[in-house]
Amino acid sequence: MSGPALRKLVIVGVGLIGGSFALALKRAGAVRSVVGIGRERANLEAALSAGIVDRARASGEAWTNEISDADLVMLATPVGEMPSLFAAIAPALGRDTVVTDVGSTKQDVVAAARTHLGAGLPNFVPGHPIAGTERSGASAAFAELFRGRTVVLTPIAETAAVALERVSDYWACCGGIVRHLKATRHDAILGAVSHLPHVLAYALVAGIAARPDGAECLEYAGTGFRDATRLASSHPRMWRDVCISNRAELLRELATYRHELARIEELLAQGDGEGLQRLFERARGVREEWLQGRSEADEA
Amino acid sequence: MSGPALRKLVIVGVGLIGGSFALALKRAGAVRSVVGIGRERANLEAALSAGIVDRARASGEAWTNEISDADLVMLATPVGEMPSLFAAIAPALGRDTVVTDVGSTKQDVVAAARTHLGAGLPNFVPGHPIAGTERSGASAAFAELFRGRTVVLTPIAETAAVALERVSDYWACCGGIVRHLKATRHDAILGAVSHLPHVLAYALVAGIAARPDGAECLEYAGTGFRDATRLASSHPRMWRDVCISNRAELLRELATYRHELARIEELLAQGDGEGLQRLFERARGVREEWLQGRSEADEA
Repeated sequence: MSGPALRKLVIVGVGLIGGSFALALKRAGAVRSVVGIGRERANLEAALSAGIVDRARASGEAWTNEISDADLVMLATPVGEMPSLFAAIAPALGRDTVVTDVGSTKQDVVAAARTHLGAGLPNFVPGHPIAGTERSGASAAFAELFRGRTVVLTPIAETAAVALERVSDYWACCGGIVRHLKATRHDAILGAVSHLPHVLAYALVAGIAARPDGAECLEYAGTGFRDATRLASSHPRMWRDVCISNRAELLRELATYRHELARIEELLAQGDGEGLQRLFERARGVREEWLQGRSEADEA
Repeated sequence: MSGPALRKLVIVGVGLIGGSFALALKRAGAVRSVVGIGRERANLEAALSAGIVDRARASGEAWTNEISDADLVMLATPVGEMPSLFAAIAPALGRDTVVTDVGSTKQDVVAAARTHLGAGLPNFVPGHPIAGTERSGASAAFAELFRGRTVVLTPIAETAAVALERVSDYWACCGGIVRHLKATRHDAILGAVSHLPHVLAYALVAGIAARPDGAECLEYAGTGFRDATRLASSHPRMWRDVCISNRAELLRELATYRHELARIEELLAQGDGEGLQRLFERARGVREEWLQGRSEADEA
């Protein structure tokens, strides 16, 4: 990497993403000391014993005195907590402390940063690594999580070039492939390919669970159902925040999706097997082509 | 197994399911000779060279003379082809030839058997192994596919006990766990936990593909999207038949599902984060409990 190694990294929210970021930088020899801030004592203990963080502070205590001499502060909590975190760290930021986040929505995070960060705003780099599993917490973290994965940064007009470059370098250290988007585009695109599929998976499981014969149905559910619903095991608090935060986009996506379903219902009602098959073939073709592109990217 | 080993097995449709059934029985030493009937020459060649079948006949040729001395005939084609297959094999069936199928819908297959099988009806055992991958064709077959998986048999009033017992034994040889359901219950349950998820996955990919910015969106799709859409890589012809055949149930499921989505849209529109979180938590809880039950079953 072109920048200096990190002397001190503060991770607020030592979960799957924050924890994996710390582990990846440690493995790359790119960070000297990691301080974890978190709400749950048990999770912080797990992060300490897994070597993810070197020190831990509970978010109930006075912890913002860890901020002023940090090179990088990463906010890796549910996005709903970010406004109050920005407000808490703003007075404590050192002149060269870079702040970044990993929130799955970007317009709301940018707005919160604008409201609360004050003089620290140019050193803030909004980000979102497109990586994850349905597992959460420090115990789910692993250093390879970001290898070959896209990391979206959504710099704003105020963002300092040097801060953007540093955050890009850190992600490159983790094996991530950095791309830039406007926050509005990010939220529209991720609404379609990530937030919508999460909601669909939650709805599928909730629908089965609400049936009087739900338990019997699940006895006959196989590996297809397992994979189709994997996202329904995602962190409910985190996804509540994402959905609420990006709800305008998500409502648009849901309306489009319901329209697509209505079209399929029409084909079914008309017994139009050929129409269904064409739709299925088109979908399969698009997905196979996409998978092919991904595997080529993995090999490159 | 309690019954005698199979001297001759005829598989009509040597794809993922039919091919895996043959491989599993061969591995168990439970079958002497397998004849594969199929439409595509290349697929039959693949089945021959993989040792799935010992002989192959194209379905364009006269192939029903293979039926009379067969112990078991398995129909493993898309369900839409089964009526004409029943009609074709009916005159050729030997007195002790047992017939089974692996179709994903059962009421239509039973109705077709009733129409066409005549005196052979008591020896017909309708079946559906709840196993599969999104891959199709003989080259996707593997002997372990059914290990620990539920195999549903939906015997009818006419089904002879000895035929039912034999088919149960063969599936047990493949590692399957045989359960019985009425055809109507099978179609209702599988409509919910299998046919619906397939349609949802196809719709999700088709919806993205139809966007003017679909290609850009897919560049930012991650592993969550990959798993949520795995079922959209399933065999379009097979799934067209399943959907058309079970369309009454599937239309009910789609209406319920759209209702579930509308409820989520309402929560979103109201900004009801707590309501969303409760829904997500309930869904996650149900899924985690289901996964737990599956892994216990795997260990048992």
